[in-house]
Amino acid sequence: MTYRAPVADMIATMKHAAGLEQALASGLYGDLGLDDITAILEEAGKFAADRIAPLNKVGDRHGTPFRDGVVTMPPGWKEVYSDWAAAGWNGLTASDAFGGQGLPCIVNSACIEMWNAASGAFGLGPLLTQGAIEAITAHASEELKAKYLPKMVSGEWTGTMNLTEPSAGSDLSVLRTRAERAGDGTYRITGSKIFITYGEHDLTENIIHLVLARLPDAPPGTKGISLFLVPKFLVNADGSIGERNDVRCHSIEHKLGVHGSPTCTMVYGDKGGATGWLVGEENRGLMAMFTMMNNARLAVALQGVSIAERATQQAVAYAMERRQGKAPGAKGEGISAIIEHPDVKRMLATMRASTRAARAICYMLASEIDRAHLGASEAERKAGNARASLLTPIAKAYATDIGNEVASLGVQVHGGMGFVEETGAAQHMRDARIYAIYEGTNGIQAIDLVTRKIGIDGGALVAAEIARMRGIVAAVAGSNAEGFGQTATRLGEAVDALEGSTRHLIAALASDPADAQAGATPYARLFGLALGGTSLAEKALKARDGDTAETVRAEALGLARFFAENLATAAPGLGASIVSGGQSVTHLDIPLAS
Amino acid sequence: MTYRAPVADMIATMKHAAGLEQALASGLYGDLGLDDITAILEEAGKFAADRIAPLNKVGDRHGTPFRDGVVTMPPGWKEVYSDWAAAGWNGLTASDAFGGQGLPCIVNSACIEMWNAASGAFGLGPLLTQGAIEAITAHASEELKAKYLPKMVSGEWTGTMNLTEPSAGSDLSVLRTRAERAGDGTYRITGSKIFITYGEHDLTENIIHLVLARLPDAPPGTKGISLFLVPKFLVNADGSIGERNDVRCHSIEHKLGVHGSPTCTMVYGDKGGATGWLVGEENRGLMAMFTMMNNARLAVALQGVSIAERATQQAVAYAMERRQGKAPGAKGEGISAIIEHPDVKRMLATMRASTRAARAICYMLASEIDRAHLGASEAERKAGNARASLLTPIAKAYATDIGNEVASLGVQVHGGMGFVEETGAAQHMRDARIYAIYEGTNGIQAIDLVTRKIGIDGGALVAAEIARMRGIVAAVAGSNAEGFGQTATRLGEAVDALEGSTRHLIAALASDPADAQAGATPYARLFGLALGGTSLAEKALKARDGDTAETVRAEALGLARFFAENLATAAPGLGASIVSGGQSVTHLDIPLAS
Repeated sequence: MTYRAPVADMIATMKHAAGLEQALASGLYGDLGLDDITAILEEAGKFAADRIAPLNKVGDRHGTPFRDGVVTMPPGWKEVYSDWAAAGWNGLTASDAFGGQGLPCIVNSACIEMWNAASGAFGLGPLLTQGAIEAITAHASEELKAKYLPKMVSGEWTGTMNLTEPSAGSDLSVLRTRAERAGDGTYRITGSKIFITYGEHDLTENIIHLVLARLPDAPPGTKGISLFLVPKFLVNADGSIGERNDVRCHSIEHKLGVHGSPTCTMVYGDKGGATGWLVGEENRGLMAMFTMMNNARLAVALQGVSIAERATQQAVAYAMERRQGKAPGAKGEGISAIIEHPDVKRMLATMRASTRAARAICYMLASEIDRAHLGASEAERKAGNARASLLTPIAKAYATDIGNEVASLGVQVHGGMGFVEETGAAQHMRDARIYAIYEGTNGIQAIDLVTRKIGIDGGALVAAEIARMRGIVAAVAGSNAEGFGQTATRLGEAVDALEGSTRHLIAALASDPADAQAGATPYARLFGLALGGTSLAEKALKARDGDTAETVRAEALGLARFFAENLATAAPGLGASIVSGGQSVTHLDIPLAS
Repeated sequence: MTYRAPVADMIATMKHAAGLEQALASGLYGDLGLDDITAILEEAGKFAADRIAPLNKVGDRHGTPFRDGVVTMPPGWKEVYSDWAAAGWNGLTASDAFGGQGLPCIVNSACIEMWNAASGAFGLGPLLTQGAIEAITAHASEELKAKYLPKMVSGEWTGTMNLTEPSAGSDLSVLRTRAERAGDGTYRITGSKIFITYGEHDLTENIIHLVLARLPDAPPGTKGISLFLVPKFLVNADGSIGERNDVRCHSIEHKLGVHGSPTCTMVYGDKGGATGWLVGEENRGLMAMFTMMNNARLAVALQGVSIAERATQQAVAYAMERRQGKAPGAKGEGISAIIEHPDVKRMLATMRASTRAARAICYMLASEIDRAHLGASEAERKAGNARASLLTPIAKAYATDIGNEVASLGVQVHGGMGFVEETGAAQHMRDARIYAIYEGTNGIQAIDLVTRKIGIDGGALVAAEIARMRGIVAAVAGSNAEGFGQTATRLGEAVDALEGSTRHLIAALASDPADAQAGATPYARLFGLALGGTSLAEKALKARDGDTAETVRAEALGLARFFAENLATAAPGLGASIVSGGQSVTHLDIPLAS
């Protein structure tokens, strides 16, 4: 068994850090009950562990060979994908009007974590399909929806997102792919796109590309970009597969990780133009794309959690088996399992506590996305949307950063064996590395947080978040719970640092925007530490009051304390760097070498 | 040009952070002058950049195919290696009695950085040979020295270190390889060794293995281990190559990085026992191995610096070329080079400042190793040795940790391109990952620092180091130099944290050794930050007084300030974790999953 789905902690996190019980009680999720959610998660966990996890190493070794425009997926992948789709997992959150199950984002979030923990390269394809489904659902005509959504929701067809071009990555304003009106309501698309995940593969009979392109009379910049649906095969009126469209995969990338996920350069319009259909309005394509980008950012954050969980499980298992030296205080003759050595335990505790903290932040975000969609009142939905928009960049940056760090610690726990590919720890580190980059680099997330989010409602949104965290700190301080140690003190210091940094950044945004941006990355991290630390503390407090087993309660308490005393302790230093370190960044001149 | 040797900074670091001028003035290095050192470094830099750097990607792609016991090195490697050895680079520090140049460790340190920055896999082989030369020089009989050293010093033969076995990694006490007395003064060696770097290759006609093994009547544990010299080919009395010895490469590892360096499983004694010669005394082999281990730790620390330097150069070059978005405050129409974006600049500044700080620590260590060997008085040599033993674990842990971090930031600066192997940034990250593991994992280094080093002279050694750093902080505070910003304050806080943590750990070593070990890793990092930060500040102060060019002075000042205000700021949090976080580590129970 290379992966066990952490269903118990997922449920505990939903209940104790993401307000699931209140949401259920308030009727936000209709008839759905905690037992239903648990059952779904357990079923998903089984599929992930039994069927998907064994694909992970196969995908890494085989990759996705490319020849003559055809991408061959790794051995065994097609069958598992078909079974996965047939079981309905692809359409968990999609509307039942198109065959989906209409389940909340928070439930799908746990499932996304499981698919990706089992195999990040496998889990990545459906994320793109689900993003495409969202964009089509929100913006396409009823005709397009009726034609494409049912097979995309069922997973019979997959979807892609075509944004990036060689010169247009983080900055889409300069993209060049062209779309011309064909006169019959369709468009002819011409151009190249790079880094297209699952742009070509043999898992399904059709692939539905969503493509950003520019009309001949479009205004320059981001206000002149339109979104088009471009199927690999045209679809006949009766829904059957028709002619091949004028789009092909030109090549695939040789990547550091996620080898089982084909990353394609796509060429549109070799033969005069691929046929595309407008999604949404002309020149408003970026807006349409942004609709689904927030959810995609949560999904990538969950990938960060997933790889951290997988790497942690593997490292803990190894540390229990591997024996070297004698741990301090070890009794008897023999040598100790390395998990007994305090330094190894620190690594494992860092891994597990960081993973849990990131999971809590992601589930808080998922719960707000649900509130934004399903809230009973306009005010409720607006509040959900606002908090989701604040939490999105923090979740994406924090969870994917710790994904990298935890996977790297996983290698370290394995010692020399960690550097040997057969062990698998190195693959986790390689796979993890893309999460902090795609779907908006973590730098972009941090800048988004600082320049667009902390000013929401004149700073009231962040102030409310800080007040909420202070409430948890006070509850810890007042709990008299044995075993919290310095938790309240350390988390209080972290929240103080967050508050001071926020004040500094809001002022700097007006007086010295470069200084504010220089503080963006440490600020996102600081926010993640404060949110993660208080979430773990809240979990520990609530586990104590609930019906949780003693071992689970002890673990929740122990990890909350560890996080506060050993990880959240970085917060004041980050605050100092934000408040007084920006000038040393912006005024520095960096030559090539000396 | 993929690599430029940073000779100017190397010289500046030697002069302004590692006391080179005082050492030269005191006659420590005899006739050697600053001009000689500069000339050697420039020559080495040329060879590294022109000849070795082009091998780096080739080695990564081709690896070292293994077939029928034979390892084939990547295309072009043999020729470059031969030219490198013929130019005398392998014997820089070796005794002139055996054809070496008798140069100081600090000069070789700069060269080691250059070979490894050019190609870590290439640079690794000579490190093992140099380690073997040291062990043989210090412990072998005159006969063995005369027979083996000349060809090892010239690089005509390479050397290896055979320590690790499947069950004996960090803990060598349980090793099982056997040695039996043959009765003629030689020994028959039988057993398997894993992770043997350059254990087999086709660069040279012979390979000299140093092998740890246990005699039949040896006491158990580390006091029963002996060291043997086991050549691949026996050497005739006239020095010519004789019969093949009973040792073979059984397989090579499929590794995350350094693909150009063959990592071998070696089998000794398939046919009854490999012929070996005792090095040093029976049962004192570990001691002999430790002689060279300290220098090997410096060498690996330099590998950390080297990969950080290489990754930084590549990232800076890319960030100057790549254009995306508009930086805050950018004038005119067009989009900005990403180096103009404060968040990218923060990454690049972190990379460069961390690299320079690690280099300074390594050169301080090298200079103490020189003092330990060449010091005029016994007291001088003893002082050098003591400070070297303190600095060794800090240099190894800090420099290789930042090697990983800087290489990973290098990937991040490249965005999506960083994840594509052709770019080269990912290779740096893969290559870097072993440095924190081999030659004593960084956890082992940190535990060595806490359990063996901070207690030296009843704590006086660390106290002196702290006093030295306080002197620099005071000089910065008193300098009235414009542009130091909060440098003195931040570094003062870092040194305070170091002092408080040291006090805590010394007490904990007596009362609760597990708590002390739990603080080891953050303590090593904290020490590295304090040493690195004060070293950069010292460089900035001295550059101001010297004959340095204005741009170099400005850069030294800017990086010192950046480091103090943005990286050393982590120190107080690490201190808090050490002083009050240990219990939450040692008392935590970590189950497999939940």
